[in-house]
Amino acid sequence: MNNNSPNTSSQNSTASTPTKRILTGITTTGIPHLGNYVGAIRPAIASIQNSDSEAFFFLADYHGIIKCHDPAAIHESTKAIAATWLACGLDPERVTFYRQSDVPEIPELAWILNCSCAKGLMNRAHAYKASVDINNEKTDVDPDQGITMGLFGYPVLMAADILMFNATHVPVGRDQIQHIEMARDIAGTFNHKYKPLFTLPSAVVDDEMPLLTGLDGRKMSKSYSNTIPLFGELNPQVSAEKQMHKAIMKIVTNSQLPEEPKDPDDSAIFEIYKAFATPTEIADMRAQFAAGIGWGDAKQALFDKINAEVAPFRARYEELMANPKELEEILQMGAEKARRHSRKQLDKTRRAIGIRPLAKLK
Amino acid sequence: MNNNSPNTSSQNSTASTPTKRILTGITTTGIPHLGNYVGAIRPAIASIQNSDSEAFFFLADYHGIIKCHDPAAIHESTKAIAATWLACGLDPERVTFYRQSDVPEIPELAWILNCSCAKGLMNRAHAYKASVDINNEKTDVDPDQGITMGLFGYPVLMAADILMFNATHVPVGRDQIQHIEMARDIAGTFNHKYKPLFTLPSAVVDDEMPLLTGLDGRKMSKSYSNTIPLFGELNPQVSAEKQMHKAIMKIVTNSQLPEEPKDPDDSAIFEIYKAFATPTEIADMRAQFAAGIGWGDAKQALFDKINAEVAPFRARYEELMANPKELEEILQMGAEKARRHSRKQLDKTRRAIGIRPLAKLK
Repeated sequence: MNNNSPNTSSQNSTASTPTKRILTGITTTGIPHLGNYVGAIRPAIASIQNSDSEAFFFLADYHGIIKCHDPAAIHESTKAIAATWLACGLDPERVTFYRQSDVPEIPELAWILNCSCAKGLMNRAHAYKASVDINNEKTDVDPDQGITMGLFGYPVLMAADILMFNATHVPVGRDQIQHIEMARDIAGTFNHKYKPLFTLPSAVVDDEMPLLTGLDGRKMSKSYSNTIPLFGELNPQVSAEKQMHKAIMKIVTNSQLPEEPKDPDDSAIFEIYKAFATPTEIADMRAQFAAGIGWGDAKQALFDKINAEVAPFRARYEELMANPKELEEILQMGAEKARRHSRKQLDKTRRAIGIRPLAKLK
Repeated sequence: MNNNSPNTSSQNSTASTPTKRILTGITTTGIPHLGNYVGAIRPAIASIQNSDSEAFFFLADYHGIIKCHDPAAIHESTKAIAATWLACGLDPERVTFYRQSDVPEIPELAWILNCSCAKGLMNRAHAYKASVDINNEKTDVDPDQGITMGLFGYPVLMAADILMFNATHVPVGRDQIQHIEMARDIAGTFNHKYKPLFTLPSAVVDDEMPLLTGLDGRKMSKSYSNTIPLFGELNPQVSAEKQMHKAIMKIVTNSQLPEEPKDPDDSAIFEIYKAFATPTEIADMRAQFAAGIGWGDAKQALFDKINAEVAPFRARYEELMANPKELEEILQMGAEKARRHSRKQLDKTRRAIGIRPLAKLK
């Protein structure tokens, strides 16, 4: 699954779906950073608050294990991501918020869907093909070198994630649209072969999704190690607030003197500032850049702006991280809500393929 | 899974396994015929009775759905196969006898194992390659035409079937040895990457496995429609005994006259007779062939011989088929026994990959 770009737009919705049901999976690798907050967490939570649709948010730990083989990292990431989303305002009473691995019906449905999924469909997956292309550039390397059945077959697990809850809208990044098309294809095959049980989901893509620039001027991404921490590292030596301040002070700038006029549209500081400020504040900062503002002052202003928004969440995050029992209770409540749907859906699916008790027992 | 050739021999066992644990899966497609009885059911049940090993026998309905998309056929086959094995003497108190789909831990483990299974391993599966070869012989056909992810990935489900119970010995036909090697490979990868949780299973192949000749002289097989029914068709118009008699009378013979001496080693009648008779009876029949026995008399003798063995089982079979509640109760008892193992094994596996509660709740 992806953890970018949830969205409220519904231009791709199918006409026939009665209720709007949004589903978002968050892969449990890594610790959320400021880019995730601006690009995924904040818009996803906002989109739910301003809508009457049903929403399913889940921690995709069975996707996490495809690429991450470090059990401690999977566990810590699950904890930090759950705490982050809740701290940022995800309301677990309003949304069904669950851990994928707490819903055993999902991998069972994935197996059933494997039998309604053409292998050729997976051969054409962009992510798989990209891995093969990398292998093909090397000499004497099998095209499938280093590719597991998990990596090859995860679009089927993703289809199960979606079809289990008859989700109608799945917010995704552009690179994930194909996966939603695959889920539609698999649902269509099953519906035709057996019974029309599954709703065909629609991808929801927000082309306006803000992508933050990182400390080094490239896109902010864990893989570039150029991120601004949101709530700090796990087991930090210094406070999360200080970590954020320190990172912001490291944003790469040019060598212009403090009093020189500066181009705000060429500055990562200004770009990140825009993601947190009101239009008036943005116009004011733009004027300060034109008039000449020292980089240090600009960074301090950026920090103050972000911190004003994030500090209240940070307190809640730290509370949740210190109290995993509360987190676990919230996830168990979510699992119960999710399983009220998944048990029924799996039971219907099993019956459709001929798997049911030989007789009713007391 | 395969439903041929269970066996007691242990020449392939690994030295390190403390207890012998045999696992046999029976795919739930079709209704058992006399060839299944002689080649699979009878030897498998006998092998357990004469051994102190633990045994797991299961109805592989999640394998059945790979090739059979008829829900009624899957359901009826599950019922008929369960009734057949029990009627033939499988003791559900002695053996853990369960339906695969009653153990949700199995598909969940299959997903986890997908992430420890190289795709290249599946590319090299004989069954998959044979399907590709057939497509490649046609023009303008994709090599993966008609191949589902179920067909491509079922060796991983089979690995989950085996590794879930740490089975040490898996009786298989020659064509299935590769699947056991794949299960060993997947277990080895997981054990190395995470923790040594899984026992490496050994294939047990019986080269002496009797393969019955069918009515038309070819190997007896459902796909040739040349079988002798064991307990008759479902919903029969005539009694199962009469169906068997009628089928035996249809065995193709040559046009030799009754009094002519006949070559027993060129006769399907004699071949099948050997599978049911004592050495003395076989020698006697051989003498009758040499002296000249009419084909009709030989067929009647064959029927009498088989019927003497099968008739008592047939009564029990019909009782069970008329009482699906009893069947279901037996399968539920088996599922409980199986899940005592599978819950523990899955829990260990989940913890090894980093999937565990964030905190212990009451």
